[in-house]
Amino acid sequence: MAKLTSRSEDYSKWYNELVVKADLAENSGVRGCMVIKPYGYAIWEKMRDELDRKFKETGHQNAYFPLFVPKSLFEAEEKNAEGFAKECAVVTHYRLKTDPNNPHKLIVDPEAKLEEELIVRPTSEAIIWSTYKNWIQSYRDLPILINQWANVVRWEMRTRLFLRTAEFLWQEGHTAHATKAEAIEETEKMLEVYATFAENYMAMPVIKGIKTESERFAGAEETYCIEAMMQDGKALQAGTSHFLGQNFAKAFDVKFTNREGKTEFAWATSWGVSTRLMGALIMAHSDDQGLVLPPTLAPIQVVIVPIFKGEEQLQQISEVAFEIQRKLKEKGISVKYDNDDQNKPGWKFAEYELKGVPVRIALGARDLENKTVEIARRDTLTKEVKPIEEVELYIEGLLKTIQQDIYTKALKFKEDSITKVDTFEEFKRILNEKGGFISAHWDGTAEEEEMIKEKTKATIRCIPLDNELEEGTSLISGKPSKQRVIFAKAY
Amino acid sequence: MAKLTSRSEDYSKWYNELVVKADLAENSGVRGCMVIKPYGYAIWEKMRDELDRKFKETGHQNAYFPLFVPKSLFEAEEKNAEGFAKECAVVTHYRLKTDPNNPHKLIVDPEAKLEEELIVRPTSEAIIWSTYKNWIQSYRDLPILINQWANVVRWEMRTRLFLRTAEFLWQEGHTAHATKAEAIEETEKMLEVYATFAENYMAMPVIKGIKTESERFAGAEETYCIEAMMQDGKALQAGTSHFLGQNFAKAFDVKFTNREGKTEFAWATSWGVSTRLMGALIMAHSDDQGLVLPPTLAPIQVVIVPIFKGEEQLQQISEVAFEIQRKLKEKGISVKYDNDDQNKPGWKFAEYELKGVPVRIALGARDLENKTVEIARRDTLTKEVKPIEEVELYIEGLLKTIQQDIYTKALKFKEDSITKVDTFEEFKRILNEKGGFISAHWDGTAEEEEMIKEKTKATIRCIPLDNELEEGTSLISGKPSKQRVIFAKAY
Repeated sequence: MAKLTSRSEDYSKWYNELVVKADLAENSGVRGCMVIKPYGYAIWEKMRDELDRKFKETGHQNAYFPLFVPKSLFEAEEKNAEGFAKECAVVTHYRLKTDPNNPHKLIVDPEAKLEEELIVRPTSEAIIWSTYKNWIQSYRDLPILINQWANVVRWEMRTRLFLRTAEFLWQEGHTAHATKAEAIEETEKMLEVYATFAENYMAMPVIKGIKTESERFAGAEETYCIEAMMQDGKALQAGTSHFLGQNFAKAFDVKFTNREGKTEFAWATSWGVSTRLMGALIMAHSDDQGLVLPPTLAPIQVVIVPIFKGEEQLQQISEVAFEIQRKLKEKGISVKYDNDDQNKPGWKFAEYELKGVPVRIALGARDLENKTVEIARRDTLTKEVKPIEEVELYIEGLLKTIQQDIYTKALKFKEDSITKVDTFEEFKRILNEKGGFISAHWDGTAEEEEMIKEKTKATIRCIPLDNELEEGTSLISGKPSKQRVIFAKAY
Repeated sequence: MAKLTSRSEDYSKWYNELVVKADLAENSGVRGCMVIKPYGYAIWEKMRDELDRKFKETGHQNAYFPLFVPKSLFEAEEKNAEGFAKECAVVTHYRLKTDPNNPHKLIVDPEAKLEEELIVRPTSEAIIWSTYKNWIQSYRDLPILINQWANVVRWEMRTRLFLRTAEFLWQEGHTAHATKAEAIEETEKMLEVYATFAENYMAMPVIKGIKTESERFAGAEETYCIEAMMQDGKALQAGTSHFLGQNFAKAFDVKFTNREGKTEFAWATSWGVSTRLMGALIMAHSDDQGLVLPPTLAPIQVVIVPIFKGEEQLQQISEVAFEIQRKLKEKGISVKYDNDDQNKPGWKFAEYELKGVPVRIALGARDLENKTVEIARRDTLTKEVKPIEEVELYIEGLLKTIQQDIYTKALKFKEDSITKVDTFEEFKRILNEKGGFISAHWDGTAEEEEMIKEKTKATIRCIPLDNELEEGTSLISGKPSKQRVIFAKAY
């Protein structure tokens, strides 16, 4: 197995190789679309299940809306339509027929042209709010708290596995409320759900904030986001929660009678995270040996590798290994015992390091004599020898320690990555030399934001929610500013 | 709430009304596509989760493949392509632009035409086998046992909620094997998984069989199926498992080196069930009052309805109700306590009958005095009074009884619905007067099968797997036959 390109050599190449070699995903025969392989999908399933539990705990229900959006519905909310128009896959026909020039080939049947084109959903506000119109008459019908797990398509020109693909999997929450305050509360609540999930499950600290107007979701009044920092100093937007105001209610005429008997437009939110989180997870923790997975999201938490010569030794070791496996499983820990006799232990060690299995137990003949096992941590690549009888208890604690340590390491990295700068020269220097989040004053105009983006490729990632007020002068215009905002180059 | 149309009055109307009134699904603004509403989706989630567990228990892993199939891949397996060509949604463009004649409207950008059209997957054999080509080199890479949960699109002209929709949700298993025998074993194993699921979870007995050549999946060597009987005497194909031979391996050149060092094409299976099962579940058990759900698939298994006058009484009742709820939840039973004070108990009773909640507990002031509750069964619409202290234990048993009784009733119905006939006159008479499954001799030709279909609309649903051999003469040609096959009109 060829070694991974190292991060320092070529970070981007390291990422692509890691995704493929660790069997997470690969490019498909369809431009920009990926195949999510079983090992990658197993991690996504764990993320999905945990998020789904959180959505249900906060009162949401799942539903399913159509893949296609008729063009007339799609264009109803103009800002949203304008925002997505340039990257829409469009269905125009509903039938193929045999090519008259070649009986083994098919062509699109020109007689099966749709009267109205269908857009493959890039997001579902339009189709969902055109449905909500029939569901909402009175304040009694509100709130509607619905989430959908689905595939969406955005025809991106430059794609990268997980980070930016033409088709991706995601969840999109779409809620309707009787009051503005309630909708804003929902928007903030879901941002908090995402932030907690990122920190507690992905072991990935984030900055919570709101987007500037130019970075807002098309059709939103306010976009809240969580931003994470990758090891190469680039930021990654990991989740967004939008307060949509009454924009979609107005576009689709969704009115209700309020408690006072008056007619009002409903208030909306939408919020989503996608398979992009897989990219964030990979880049947040992994190293030159391969994936580093937090135990909470690892499909295999512990792998047991026997070190043996001959069938008889393997049998003796297996007896002990199966017993350890059984006891760990009783504690709800997922364990693989790899007794395959085609690959050498060294190969297996490298393979499970590549795949980010948090804990490896090696068990050989001498271990049996000494009643010990060798326990290796994937995150620190350290090993220690422990008595067999203590194994389950030790590993139960170790998985928690690893989860915590991975988070602490990522938190320190994130905090170290934030640099306060006060001049544009310093801004450019830090961006080039160190990268990371840059905390700087901004005059609040789209012009300055755009100018900085043009000159440096850095964008305003967010205005942090917990921002301290601080008088200052903005980087380029030199106008007075009341607070710093967070800049970075981003995925 | 207007009453449901009764089954005897208009079965088809009853079904459509029930689906909508019980909040399971509704038609959307997109031709032939449905919205699956939260209550319907909650049932589908339970089905999905249980099937997923069974797939994993039998060694399968989930993965995800692209929504789109490039035309050149789609047409590679010719029979499969031919079978689906007439119902394909085709993506031809990847961008919209502002209508030059109307700045508020969008049009398809003619300059954004795809070089190669993309088919929205009607099924994924083509895209998956074009991927497997890179995964399979040696017998060591086999078997590949993968399942995918996904949406697919088949452009059906006549659609009905759940039963036949342009877009539907399903799972599709796609496995690759080193030998024919192993692939056939897999095909049969998954049919058994489906049959067991239908019987144990959906409480819906099925006939297991194989399809005739003309009813086979396009591209399969053999299609196994489970067929269920609906209350109106029409059959419903509830799941299929296909032995695909080497057809897809040949179309996509998927070869491997076998144990003997020789190169061979891989053997394939595919198998799937869809949201169509929702239609089967609804029609198998429900009655003129609404849904009847087997407890295993009911999102709410028990509802508690307080009968009260005034706030004080409600409080006293609620205290007891919450205690019952808590104890039932401890037993893993899902319970809703409906203490909404806007709707009368009678309204609630009708509502939960419509929604098929298996058990209803009514709790009034007199019950508190007597320390009793009234327990009503949805399936039989019977009531009984039980001491409060026995409630949890009683209901735990009752849910099992209901599950069993629903199944037993459906089994009797299915068995009664099978009629043996020996002449075509009798065949036509039974089909018109009684419907159901008709067991009759067939000469084994596509001609006779087609003639019967043309004259009666009945098709051969399957040749049962456990069929007894029996000499006879076929219905129309009068040729000798060695076994009966199962005919029916079908959904």
